[in-house]
Amino acid sequence: MMTTQEILEAVAAGQLSPTAATAQLEATQTADLGFANVDLSRQHRNGFPEVIYGAGKTAPQIAGIIKAMTPQTTPILTTRLTAEKFAALQPALPTAVYHEAAKCMTVGAMPTPKSTDYIAVVTAGTSDLPVAEEAAVTAQAFGNRVERVYDVGVAGIHRLFAKLDVIRGAKVVIVIAGMEGALASVVGGLIDKPLIAVPTSVGYGTNFQGLTALLTMLNSCASGITVVNIDNGFGAAYSASMINQL
Amino acid sequence: MMTTQEILEAVAAGQLSPTAATAQLEATQTADLGFANVDLSRQHRNGFPEVIYGAGKTAPQIAGIIKAMTPQTTPILTTRLTAEKFAALQPALPTAVYHEAAKCMTVGAMPTPKSTDYIAVVTAGTSDLPVAEEAAVTAQAFGNRVERVYDVGVAGIHRLFAKLDVIRGAKVVIVIAGMEGALASVVGGLIDKPLIAVPTSVGYGTNFQGLTALLTMLNSCASGITVVNIDNGFGAAYSASMINQL
Amino acid sequence: MMTTQEILEAVAAGQLSPTAATAQLEATQTADLGFANVDLSRQHRNGFPEVIYGAGKTAPQIAGIIKAMTPQTTPILTTRLTAEKFAALQPALPTAVYHEAAKCMTVGAMPTPKSTDYIAVVTAGTSDLPVAEEAAVTAQAFGNRVERVYDVGVAGIHRLFAKLDVIRGAKVVIVIAGMEGALASVVGGLIDKPLIAVPTSVGYGTNFQGLTALLTMLNSCASGITVVNIDNGFGAAYSASMINQL
Amino acid sequence: MMTTQEILEAVAAGQLSPTAATAQLEATQTADLGFANVDLSRQHRNGFPEVIYGAGKTAPQIAGIIKAMTPQTTPILTTRLTAEKFAALQPALPTAVYHEAAKCMTVGAMPTPKSTDYIAVVTAGTSDLPVAEEAAVTAQAFGNRVERVYDVGVAGIHRLFAKLDVIRGAKVVIVIAGMEGALASVVGGLIDKPLIAVPTSVGYGTNFQGLTALLTMLNSCASGITVVNIDNGFGAAYSASMINQL
Amino acid sequence: MMTTQEILEAVAAGQLSPTAATAQLEATQTADLGFANVDLSRQHRNGFPEVIYGAGKTAPQIAGIIKAMTPQTTPILTTRLTAEKFAALQPALPTAVYHEAAKCMTVGAMPTPKSTDYIAVVTAGTSDLPVAEEAAVTAQAFGNRVERVYDVGVAGIHRLFAKLDVIRGAKVVIVIAGMEGALASVVGGLIDKPLIAVPTSVGYGTNFQGLTALLTMLNSCASGITVVNIDNGFGAAYSASMINQL
Amino acid sequence: MMTTQEILEAVAAGQLSPTAATAQLEATQTADLGFANVDLSRQHRNGFPEVIYGAGKTAPQIAGIIKAMTPQTTPILTTRLTAEKFAALQPALPTAVYHEAAKCMTVGAMPTPKSTDYIAVVTAGTSDLPVAEEAAVTAQAFGNRVERVYDVGVAGIHRLFAKLDVIRGAKVVIVIAGMEGALASVVGGLIDKPLIAVPTSVGYGTNFQGLTALLTMLNSCASGITVVNIDNGFGAAYSASMINQL
Amino acid sequence: MMTTQEILEAVAAGQLSPTAATAQLEATQTADLGFANVDLSRQHRNGFPEVIYGAGKTAPQIAGIIKAMTPQTTPILTTRLTAEKFAALQPALPTAVYHEAAKCMTVGAMPTPKSTDYIAVVTAGTSDLPVAEEAAVTAQAFGNRVERVYDVGVAGIHRLFAKLDVIRGAKVVIVIAGMEGALASVVGGLIDKPLIAVPTSVGYGTNFQGLTALLTMLNSCASGITVVNIDNGFGAAYSASMINQL
Amino acid sequence: MMTTQEILEAVAAGQLSPTAATAQLEATQTADLGFANVDLSRQHRNGFPEVIYGAGKTAPQIAGIIKAMTPQTTPILTTRLTAEKFAALQPALPTAVYHEAAKCMTVGAMPTPKSTDYIAVVTAGTSDLPVAEEAAVTAQAFGNRVERVYDVGVAGIHRLFAKLDVIRGAKVVIVIAGMEGALASVVGGLIDKPLIAVPTSVGYGTNFQGLTALLTMLNSCASGITVVNIDNGFGAAYSASMINQL
Repeated sequence: MMTTQEILEAVAAGQLSPTAATAQLEATQTADLGFANVDLSRQHRNGFPEVIYGAGKTAPQIAGIIKAMTPQTTPILTTRLTAEKFAALQPALPTAVYHEAAKCMTVGAMPTPKSTDYIAVVTAGTSDLPVAEEAAVTAQAFGNRVERVYDVGVAGIHRLFAKLDVIRGAKVVIVIAGMEGALASVVGGLIDKPLIAVPTSVGYGTNFQGLTALLTMLNSCASGITVVNIDNGFGAAYSASMINQL
Repeated sequence: MMTTQEILEAVAAGQLSPTAATAQLEATQTADLGFANVDLSRQHRNGFPEVIYGAGKTAPQIAGIIKAMTPQTTPILTTRLTAEKFAALQPALPTAVYHEAAKCMTVGAMPTPKSTDYIAVVTAGTSDLPVAEEAAVTAQAFGNRVERVYDVGVAGIHRLFAKLDVIRGAKVVIVIAGMEGALASVVGGLIDKPLIAVPTSVGYGTNFQGLTALLTMLNSCASGITVVNIDNGFGAAYSASMINQL
Repeated sequence: MMTTQEILEAVAAGQLSPTAATAQLEATQTADLGFANVDLSRQHRNGFPEVIYGAGKTAPQIAGIIKAMTPQTTPILTTRLTAEKFAALQPALPTAVYHEAAKCMTVGAMPTPKSTDYIAVVTAGTSDLPVAEEAAVTAQAFGNRVERVYDVGVAGIHRLFAKLDVIRGAKVVIVIAGMEGALASVVGGLIDKPLIAVPTSVGYGTNFQGLTALLTMLNSCASGITVVNIDNGFGAAYSASMINQL
Repeated sequence: MMTTQEILEAVAAGQLSPTAATAQLEATQTADLGFANVDLSRQHRNGFPEVIYGAGKTAPQIAGIIKAMTPQTTPILTTRLTAEKFAALQPALPTAVYHEAAKCMTVGAMPTPKSTDYIAVVTAGTSDLPVAEEAAVTAQAFGNRVERVYDVGVAGIHRLFAKLDVIRGAKVVIVIAGMEGALASVVGGLIDKPLIAVPTSVGYGTNFQGLTALLTMLNSCASGITVVNIDNGFGAAYSASMINQL
Repeated sequence: MMTTQEILEAVAAGQLSPTAATAQLEATQTADLGFANVDLSRQHRNGFPEVIYGAGKTAPQIAGIIKAMTPQTTPILTTRLTAEKFAALQPALPTAVYHEAAKCMTVGAMPTPKSTDYIAVVTAGTSDLPVAEEAAVTAQAFGNRVERVYDVGVAGIHRLFAKLDVIRGAKVVIVIAGMEGALASVVGGLIDKPLIAVPTSVGYGTNFQGLTALLTMLNSCASGITVVNIDNGFGAAYSASMINQL
Repeated sequence: MMTTQEILEAVAAGQLSPTAATAQLEATQTADLGFANVDLSRQHRNGFPEVIYGAGKTAPQIAGIIKAMTPQTTPILTTRLTAEKFAALQPALPTAVYHEAAKCMTVGAMPTPKSTDYIAVVTAGTSDLPVAEEAAVTAQAFGNRVERVYDVGVAGIHRLFAKLDVIRGAKVVIVIAGMEGALASVVGGLIDKPLIAVPTSVGYGTNFQGLTALLTMLNSCASGITVVNIDNGFGAAYSASMINQL
Repeated sequence: MMTTQEILEAVAAGQLSPTAATAQLEATQTADLGFANVDLSRQHRNGFPEVIYGAGKTAPQIAGIIKAMTPQTTPILTTRLTAEKFAALQPALPTAVYHEAAKCMTVGAMPTPKSTDYIAVVTAGTSDLPVAEEAAVTAQAFGNRVERVYDVGVAGIHRLFAKLDVIRGAKVVIVIAGMEGALASVVGGLIDKPLIAVPTSVGYGTNFQGLTALLTMLNSCASGITVVNIDNGFGAAYSASMINQL
Repeated sequence: MMTTQEILEAVAAGQLSPTAATAQLEATQTADLGFANVDLSRQHRNGFPEVIYGAGKTAPQIAGIIKAMTPQTTPILTTRLTAEKFAALQPALPTAVYHEAAKCMTVGAMPTPKSTDYIAVVTAGTSDLPVAEEAAVTAQAFGNRVERVYDVGVAGIHRLFAKLDVIRGAKVVIVIAGMEGALASVVGGLIDKPLIAVPTSVGYGTNFQGLTALLTMLNSCASGITVVNIDNGFGAAYSASMINQL
């Protein structure tokens, strides 16, 4: 695929008319499926390929997008995919693998990690597991080594200290917590690496579906913490992957 | 002062007409100042005398209420009193003492603690000090021993562990924190005594003047935590005092 | 089980290497089930054993946690357990008892109260009953005597006055109310004991699933009131139990 | 002034052209001052004359509106008027009276009450007084007898019972309360007359400038309660006056 | 039934011991069903009997409460009753009538109106009908004449003007509107009678389940408007009935 | 149909009594169906006929309204109609057409566009399609040419630039976006035509069902943007149609 | 100024190197002042020149931006400018005119209207005037005829009907209202032109600084209404100007 | 300074008693000033020294903390420091430098960047400058090279494209924006590096002091974006510095 710069130079050299250049540029970057405009140049531009957000799409739409991406991308990751929708997709995608705890599907072999640097995925409780697995599977699909440290919330803080070495050894740490989300502050005060906090919608009453954990994390008295949307394990892994592969 | 029960029995004995009983009952319990209906029977009914909330009252109103309470109550505590208002009150109340950090005034000698059991007042940061002092002075005015443990927030959690013995030795613990308020959860997970959490309005942005700390505390994953209104050091001390003196 | 202090002294005495000490310390305190890190030292640290929050866990997860806790804890309390989930658990836990109104399960005999001091559990209306029973069963499982005073809301305040003696006789009072939650203020003004207020999600429209009752309770003009999260009967009982057993 | 119906009949009788009728109708009903379109037919249409909301207007604007209303209305009531603005108005309005506690001004003599039926204005605390006085002065300016019952909040509920006869004797009751606003529910449960509740912005923290009291009143478990905007003493008096004069 | 005053006088006369008086007083006023404390003295105290809020109760609970109220009250009104729950109740209550549009049930004959004064129930749209019917049936059950004026929202304001005479003829007007709720302001500007506004949860997006209509009504530029909770047709009718029967 | 002015002139000429005029005026403008007051004069007054909002109505109600509108309006548009409700309506409305993606029904032939001026309907993602189709079908039913530009969100901004000519050629542009809604700002900065922004409820967590996109659009740093309610494709098309046909 | 297309064609013709083209393109479009990057190509791209938002800028910054824009733009409009800041600017900008009610400044002569089509600026009350004037002055600075219709709120709806002809004669209508904002719905139901609604921050209590009026307008039952941010008179005028000049 | 591990090993070797070890550990890590507990081991633990948040502290408190930190830390950074407070500090801190635009003070020489890798600090508008400078000065104080790219908001998106090379060349990008905050999404879609978004409180009305920009950034359709609290330039720089120095 020619870069934008190469195309412009071809225009300058008179090898390409502006109209043709525009057309070609677009054609190589986008697959227009009618219902979707698949962004095929994202890996080139953003470092990672487009990932399919399964929640808002029908099984045929997902299958169509995967087909359009197939020659260029591997593995193709679909997030927020229910078991029902996966079952509907399986006949069309016989090699697809469903990661049940993560509610993710991958088409194509998972890559081996590009280095021994790893991302630590840390959770406060058992109920945060689906978000944590979405993060972990995403990070692995993008070629990262991942270490899972689960159920180490501050109500029993000795559980956290027992795993502190694994957390401190990571190049970047993802902390996932619902309820009051205090784990992010405590971990943030104990490490010297970037920490990405993911609030989860675990809780009840004034938890407001994760809003409380989000606010806790945004207002942390510990430094070095950045935050993503509620339950956004994918987004945390995406940023963590960028950092881990710097 | 006759109790309600005694008055009713006097009515039953024909020693008191219903109308007279009603009048007497009210007269002994309330001092009607026009602008205020001072509740003189609160100590009898609630265990502690009425405390004057200074924020919504003028200096003359405060002086009038103190005068009405004087024969019965000592010390008389006024909270949320600015230094300016105290200066205006001083000529009329020459024995009054102003507790500047707490923004409280006491009229009458502070009591000696009723026992060696103590209330620990713990803060996350330096900025939480005014609320902490309101709590501490209130608790002392109600006859409690108080131990202050300040600036032990979770961003440097070793500071907390260094003071853990003092906290664990208390009969009841007040934890005061702004920003994300995570200190309450961490302390709550480490002690076996009742913990009253006070969110403070310290912070900025999505702290929302203390709302974030309040939500954190209400959703704590640690058990044994109850919560009062934002910046309500007085209220926390009132409940802690009830518990400390059980 | 050795205390932390004993382990450290053993280290100092050369009887235990730091590495071994750490391992042993953790091993004795935590049961790592993969999906959960059961906190076995909580009773030692917090005075009461870990309680299982049933809402976020599958039946096999609950069964596994109970098995890990079994030798050390009795009774084992599970809250927020649906009748369906209990039915699934029954074969594996033949001695388990389901408290339907409370949606709680206990495994192991309920303790006899440790003293005649009691916790009063007071509700405003009939609809607050599930939260009240969660509180009452929790308190009983922790060894407290409980007195229930139900449906005495302020719309018919004579119902409250008729039960005032039972309320005033308690060592600590739990007031549970939905809608506007005014009962907490009224009771708070009439007693001289700690009051823990529990807002419930009973109501409609601007009740906002209990938020209005919560705000009412946090802003009560009566003193001596602390508050827990919406519908958190368990949390109120936990704190009340700590106070009742001081 | 001709009524709308009379004008239409004049049109039907050919005594008035549609264009002329429209013009006359408008001319008799509105005084266009450029900056304001004074509604002169409001008393005819709504039973009470237009009242000037002083907060959003300059002193010259207020003076101009009063001049336009003068021949038809007495007394002319201006609400939310600061002492400073009143001082600026006094030279132009020598007969004006300033009601300081109410922050209201009246021009023209206050009417004698139209009957012995009265409106009870009840407050929870001393700080609710400005709103209460706005309500009381408004009601009096509209020709009602008013009974004031101040500082009878539920933290000392015996103060309320001592004044219950005055409250029960009213034809309509206005209850004014800040903080948690529980007084409305308690009074509502004790009377058989319409109750208009006014939340005030008295409080701090999660009081949210009166929002908590408003929510409490909207969700009252007692029936027969309707609510107006925060601090809207005028609006409560307006409705109460309509009811009192039925 | 003896009044409180009569009982107290009997105590004074030595005809009744305080203990006995208390017991009798309570016994005559409350029917304790275990799950509920039915308030039998409400009609005496508040002018209207207790009404059963069906939403939070099981069919057996409702049947039990109705049985306890039966000798004293007629008709007995139950609101927020689904058709399914009514079907379950019918065998036990053969004379019960279900008002489907209102989701209300009455047991006992509806009273004939006590006067020709009437309550106008006005709605903005077709979707506001269930709330309007709850209001209308409640008002009729309390002995009021009701006039319904439906679907006259401001998007086609000529529909309102066509019905203005019926609205203006009422002694009190209930305006029921969802979406932006502007109808209350427009009607309020056109009448000289008390107006009770009921926001409904009709709308989508930023309507926030009726919150927008509520806020509109609380902030109305027209005077004489008071407001009840979202969808609270019952509450509006209760207050309107008090006013209509003054 | 006579205009209001013509009727008034007939009254002035004595050809019509005021009573008769009123009756006729109303009769010609409104069809009172009991459950609805169909506004038949809306096209005359507002330029477009009344459109049926299907969400809050039963199939028989919709059928009744369509019958009342039939002689005067074509096509008759119903929005927010589920496939199930359409199926129930089909026997009664054999010529009705269901636009599935838009969840709209039209009865009567779609008009040919009144000019070549067109409305561009632009979406950020695939999930915004239902709202976009509601807008597009509405605009077509009102006689406008529509150009659809779908899935050009800012995460792959080259997709937008590739379609910029179509967008710039429109007389008015509708931009439809969920999540963070940034597309409206970007398009607004690139065109010189009115832009109507429609936030959609696509997203999760702090998206708050479209509130975030709404706030983004209201606060856009680009000028020339106005906003409608969340998911209100119909409303955007209505306004766009007015502008396109100026 | 060369258009983007012309520059690209020059590149294609070899008359311009890609690097030079980029530099020139940027240079002609932006004036980099260090503290600001003035967008000089906005009129070309968006139809109207950049307008200076005065609130966030110092007087020297404003003077600098005006100097950079001077050769190309006339008049240069600055909004949200306090009288104090204008006084500081006057020496440097001797020809500047300050529109006090609008808090706007113009440098350069106001244009004569481009046509007789006009924008009606309608307000509910006197307090909405500053926002209305910001809208009116902006519209005039952009070459539009403006008709002002002030203080016609729905509390006295006859005032609105008296001015209906002026409103109906406009090509586009701006409705500006605070408090409950109902005027937008009423006007929207009476006209057949695009209506842009501007909520203002006029009100108190649950008005929430204009949020209530905003919500009212977004949820209007009338069609053809779009909305801008609270107090955004400028934004409404910008869109209205685009529509008026189509 | 001994590490925790070294201390424990000394304990194991019998060279240090547990009590002495605890004391020493604490003493080396904390400077207890009474009003503050300065965390001296933060650089060791978190990679960067403690930074003084100036907003909540008096000048003497700041001076005291700086004195305690002086031997170990350089430079010492104080954020959120007003010019007035700096003036009060200057006599005691003659070498202190005030960064006015950033409202930060540094004591001790700024370090030279540790590498040529740089952090790009990008802003949408001129008003975002204070937050941007806080970020830039913080990053420089931590030893990073910084490139500033200011005023490139999406309303004139060509300004952004002109600076894209500088942004793409960074190792990590900080995007700072108020109003609707759309710039973060646009930049996020164009780069392949971690992006930290900082919402600012620039805006009005429904901007809600930065909440809108925060929500926009949390919901971005572009991946690789993490977010910090409103106006938290320091926090963004802290995390960016960690990443830049990996």
